[in-house]
Amino acid sequence: MLRTYRVARASGLSGLRGGIPTAPRGTRQLFTKPPQHPAKPKTKSLELRRPDQVRQLSGKPLPRTQSTLLNFGYRTAAWFGSSIAFVGLGFVAFFLYDASTYSSHATNQGDIAISKLALNPRRGGPKNLPILEIFLDDDDDEEKKKHKDKPRLVILGGGWGSVALLKELNPDNYHVTVISPANYFLFTPMLPSATVGTLELKSLVEPIRNIINRVKGHYVRATAEDVDFSSRLVEVSQKDPRGNEVRFYVPYDKLVIAVGSTTNPHGVKGLENCHFLKDINDARQIRNKIIQNLELSCLPTTSDEERKRLLSFVVCGGGPTGVEFAAELFDLLNEDLTLHFPRLLRNEISVHLIQSRDHILNTYDEAVSKYAEDRFSRDQVDVLVNSRVAEVRPESILFTQTGPDGKTTVTKELPMGFCLWSTGVAQAEFCKRISRQLGPAQTNHHALETDTHLRLNGTPLSDVYAIGDCATVQNNVADHIITFVRNLAWKHGQDPEKLELHFSDWRTVAQQVKKRFPQAAAHLKRLDKLFEEYDKDQNGTLDFGELRELLKQIDNKLTSLPATAQRAHQQGQYLAHKFNKLARAAPGLKANEISEGDLDAAVYKAFEYRHLGSLAYIGNSAVFDWGDGWNFSGGLWAVYAWRSIYFTQSVSLRTRVLMAMDWAKRALFGRDLMSF
Amino acid sequence: MLRTYRVARASGLSGLRGGIPTAPRGTRQLFTKPPQHPAKPKTKSLELRRPDQVRQLSGKPLPRTQSTLLNFGYRTAAWFGSSIAFVGLGFVAFFLYDASTYSSHATNQGDIAISKLALNPRRGGPKNLPILEIFLDDDDDEEKKKHKDKPRLVILGGGWGSVALLKELNPDNYHVTVISPANYFLFTPMLPSATVGTLELKSLVEPIRNIINRVKGHYVRATAEDVDFSSRLVEVSQKDPRGNEVRFYVPYDKLVIAVGSTTNPHGVKGLENCHFLKDINDARQIRNKIIQNLELSCLPTTSDEERKRLLSFVVCGGGPTGVEFAAELFDLLNEDLTLHFPRLLRNEISVHLIQSRDHILNTYDEAVSKYAEDRFSRDQVDVLVNSRVAEVRPESILFTQTGPDGKTTVTKELPMGFCLWSTGVAQAEFCKRISRQLGPAQTNHHALETDTHLRLNGTPLSDVYAIGDCATVQNNVADHIITFVRNLAWKHGQDPEKLELHFSDWRTVAQQVKKRFPQAAAHLKRLDKLFEEYDKDQNGTLDFGELRELLKQIDNKLTSLPATAQRAHQQGQYLAHKFNKLARAAPGLKANEISEGDLDAAVYKAFEYRHLGSLAYIGNSAVFDWGDGWNFSGGLWAVYAWRSIYFTQSVSLRTRVLMAMDWAKRALFGRDLMSF
Repeated sequence: MLRTYRVARASGLSGLRGGIPTAPRGTRQLFTKPPQHPAKPKTKSLELRRPDQVRQLSGKPLPRTQSTLLNFGYRTAAWFGSSIAFVGLGFVAFFLYDASTYSSHATNQGDIAISKLALNPRRGGPKNLPILEIFLDDDDDEEKKKHKDKPRLVILGGGWGSVALLKELNPDNYHVTVISPANYFLFTPMLPSATVGTLELKSLVEPIRNIINRVKGHYVRATAEDVDFSSRLVEVSQKDPRGNEVRFYVPYDKLVIAVGSTTNPHGVKGLENCHFLKDINDARQIRNKIIQNLELSCLPTTSDEERKRLLSFVVCGGGPTGVEFAAELFDLLNEDLTLHFPRLLRNEISVHLIQSRDHILNTYDEAVSKYAEDRFSRDQVDVLVNSRVAEVRPESILFTQTGPDGKTTVTKELPMGFCLWSTGVAQAEFCKRISRQLGPAQTNHHALETDTHLRLNGTPLSDVYAIGDCATVQNNVADHIITFVRNLAWKHGQDPEKLELHFSDWRTVAQQVKKRFPQAAAHLKRLDKLFEEYDKDQNGTLDFGELRELLKQIDNKLTSLPATAQRAHQQGQYLAHKFNKLARAAPGLKANEISEGDLDAAVYKAFEYRHLGSLAYIGNSAVFDWGDGWNFSGGLWAVYAWRSIYFTQSVSLRTRVLMAMDWAKRALFGRDLMSF
Repeated sequence: MLRTYRVARASGLSGLRGGIPTAPRGTRQLFTKPPQHPAKPKTKSLELRRPDQVRQLSGKPLPRTQSTLLNFGYRTAAWFGSSIAFVGLGFVAFFLYDASTYSSHATNQGDIAISKLALNPRRGGPKNLPILEIFLDDDDDEEKKKHKDKPRLVILGGGWGSVALLKELNPDNYHVTVISPANYFLFTPMLPSATVGTLELKSLVEPIRNIINRVKGHYVRATAEDVDFSSRLVEVSQKDPRGNEVRFYVPYDKLVIAVGSTTNPHGVKGLENCHFLKDINDARQIRNKIIQNLELSCLPTTSDEERKRLLSFVVCGGGPTGVEFAAELFDLLNEDLTLHFPRLLRNEISVHLIQSRDHILNTYDEAVSKYAEDRFSRDQVDVLVNSRVAEVRPESILFTQTGPDGKTTVTKELPMGFCLWSTGVAQAEFCKRISRQLGPAQTNHHALETDTHLRLNGTPLSDVYAIGDCATVQNNVADHIITFVRNLAWKHGQDPEKLELHFSDWRTVAQQVKKRFPQAAAHLKRLDKLFEEYDKDQNGTLDFGELRELLKQIDNKLTSLPATAQRAHQQGQYLAHKFNKLARAAPGLKANEISEGDLDAAVYKAFEYRHLGSLAYIGNSAVFDWGDGWNFSGGLWAVYAWRSIYFTQSVSLRTRVLMAMDWAKRALFGRDLMSF
């Protein structure tokens, strides 16, 4: 082997060549037949021949290359060289692929068959509006033609719930239409990152049309206005090219309402002076505002006081969005600002977080929220807990702070140059309208009520579903458990109305509740206290009425599943699986002429939310809360973990590649402090 | 060597391991001391020992791996494996680097020394406005402190000229301030690509603050309003946080005006119905408009006629911007549209290019413009030459087309859903104000006139310079040549006023002109025709007056250098080199008490524009015109060449990496059809 290297060198080849194993070995094959046995003599003859050949080329004595260091150098160079070649080949391959993606000829398609109904839809429905029965692209290809006569699944909204549904839905069973005013899905958990340029806006969005391609679906850019449940028509509105509103109907066989929520104003005055963080344009506006304030602070016409005000950033709301935004803002100001702006600005900047509860991240485990608060206090992010915003003025914010005793309140005014309002969600106008229309079936004023099969209460069974932030599930723990207890009582030969539960019985019932409704566990931690509280007559037992009251109370707490992406995602997946099952069951049901009754319950289980944990980014560290006291927090490694989770959760390969590119960009070039 | 492989395999290592040269060889070093002579016997002993060892590990006979195929397989796997390891190492290294870029601790800077004048600037100047003499960051670090007392170089504008100047300027000589309303440099030639999402907007811009970092400069986000040349103050305006205009002065020792130009309305009515393509917001608006039109076309409430109108895209202006935009638009519609939108749309789309001259790209070589036209006609881009836009209406465009005979004109109306106006440049308001102020020294109504040293005519020498689109260079060919001819005449003992030039003399003079003013060459091609034309008295000779007239005519043609990035770039570089020389010469001049006189001419040559060629992208092909008939056009390979040129021309590593990422993104995921 050492000999071989020498040959390579003496014949003018560099160490690089010597290390590519194929070259000298390939040569050797030319000299010798493949040996039949471990080839000691062959090798020997090679060893003898080679140096002769080389000596003919060069008369000089062979250099001594036995040095370990030199050999190591050769091998490293060889490895390096062949790897570079590999990477180079990758580049060439990519360019070849790239070249294949250009279609240099105009796509001449000739005539296209389009149904007349698609071009001139017939009018109808209660308001005699055009009805979108046939789509322009219903006949575009064989795949689409096949879907024409399938049941119509109409999905309102293009958020987490809809996309989870679309990604799990069997592509062959439904004629799918998505109606949404935005033609993209937004990866909301990363939105705070986009406000400061850690991620690009583009990397957080995926065109809806890309997503529906899988199910050969259709997209209509419009806003849902109303639903006529009896004639199964969704009324949608859109602005025509002249800016006038036009309305039309989209018919459905199955309707999924997943329109999300709006910002909760909490009745505070002056929210027009705030920024929100709900969609991609909000993120851009925030970015521009931050940079504008920085630029204004540099002008000689800006007074000291004015500069301090411009650089006072206030975040209202200590939930994940508010906390992550404050953290990202701090990163921007800490890592990138001082590189390019006068140092004075860094000293004048203040970030304030106003939280109404006594802790930030109050839905998380206490340890997590403590960690976040410590981190913020170290990073000089001013956390104001027990504070309620009273009014947002153009240049300041008024809030009342409750003292540690819980009684004394003081009203403070904080000058500010920027205010983010992220204090939870409220019901969208469309949902309010639906809710009013359904009357007594809908009693919740915050969200649309569904049963555990996610069917909208008050609408024909298996027609209309509601998922995500706009909906809430009535678990009916009480009803289920009461039935269970009643059966138990009858079995023991007792009259349930006269049932008296001792504490041990109550513990059994509670176990049962925890098993069926895992979400209820959190509310059944202190069984003794609950027992005491609801044992109104203090007789040491719960009677039937007291038990019902207790369970109802738990029920009420359970109905409000968290308004998170996670819940919407699980509900979307649940619906997709159910719709797939329903479609598979359809031929059988048809054969048996079954079209009424609780089909959903017949083919699929009820929806059950499984909390997989919460995470939050808090300024070069991250916190994770898996529930039940499982949680951890950490520095940079946790940030990488946090990113990995969202990376895998991301909607498409495209957004994943883009996010990775963005993170690399931030490392290489920092965040861009530009506004446009 | 074959032996070594066998060892590796028999001991359970895969072919992959066998190929990493260091592993088995390193092992060998353990058995033997480094041999003193070419180690034939040593190798032999090794060969003997090794199989024994292996046999001890496994009793089975050794497999026969002498097969060429098998060896090839091993080697390929080895190469592949080590390359993967290499790439993996790269990733690890990048992550380590990434981790090092987070500063997890708040930058606590303590007190910062800032001049009182920076916080409360004194007032003065003709309008008694605050004067920005000391900047907030003048004392931020040692480097910046050193610059405090250097001559103040103020640059108005952040375009090609300014950036070229900033990149070539010696960092130690001037206290540099850039004043521009946009805090980024925009790579204008790629703007058409950004309108359709081939490139991201971010990839075309570089923050001015990044660029001025090299020269430790300052940036003021404001708009230049006026200049007081006698007290050397630039009056700038900015909106304060309340939206009121505030004004202040920025003092200078040297002022460079590079504010660019505005769109030329050519007196056409209804331009509010057009889009422009001057800055990054224009590009975004165009992108959103295109997508909005596509979405509207899909609605059932849109009639056939309306759909055709919405999908009729009109480009006014057949220069590079117009042509490239039309080409990019065609790419978008051809490559990406049909994947996601109904096929019908592709059939209904029309792209029109309205050009007032008889060819598109009329500043390019005829062959190039012919190629572009052929390409467009194949791609069904409707090129309307000899057509002048009369009026742009909200939903249609009116234009008059001159027939092939050059006389008959017809007025046509074209329904359109989108109109881009890109018909050349006009003078910015600021320049008009300067021009009026300088009175008779400025006679050109289209641009600020400078001498060949790029000094603004009418201002104190070596104080004020103007470059880029906003300026024009008076070459004064006539003056120079007349002096030359006069000297020639005196030398020959003739009275120059009575000089008579025969055609051969004229040819000598023309040669002289071509030598001194390379740009004039294009206008001196048909010497005989020129001679004939200007020999008014038809006596076969040019007298002194006739010669002067001829040269003046050429002069006029030369003054208008093309309003291109290339020219601005060269002028910026020229100024940087001159400023560097002036700074180097300054101590000597000071010692000799020279402060008046033509310093510029004393230290540096006059500006000379060298045309390096023009390029344009025309839909999966590109054209190049190097001037003097050198040109070529081609398909995909030309596109790659076109990209390479702009890639190298790009302003920073950051924009280069971003552009490369964008091109890769387009190949992988297509263009994004989203609007926000």
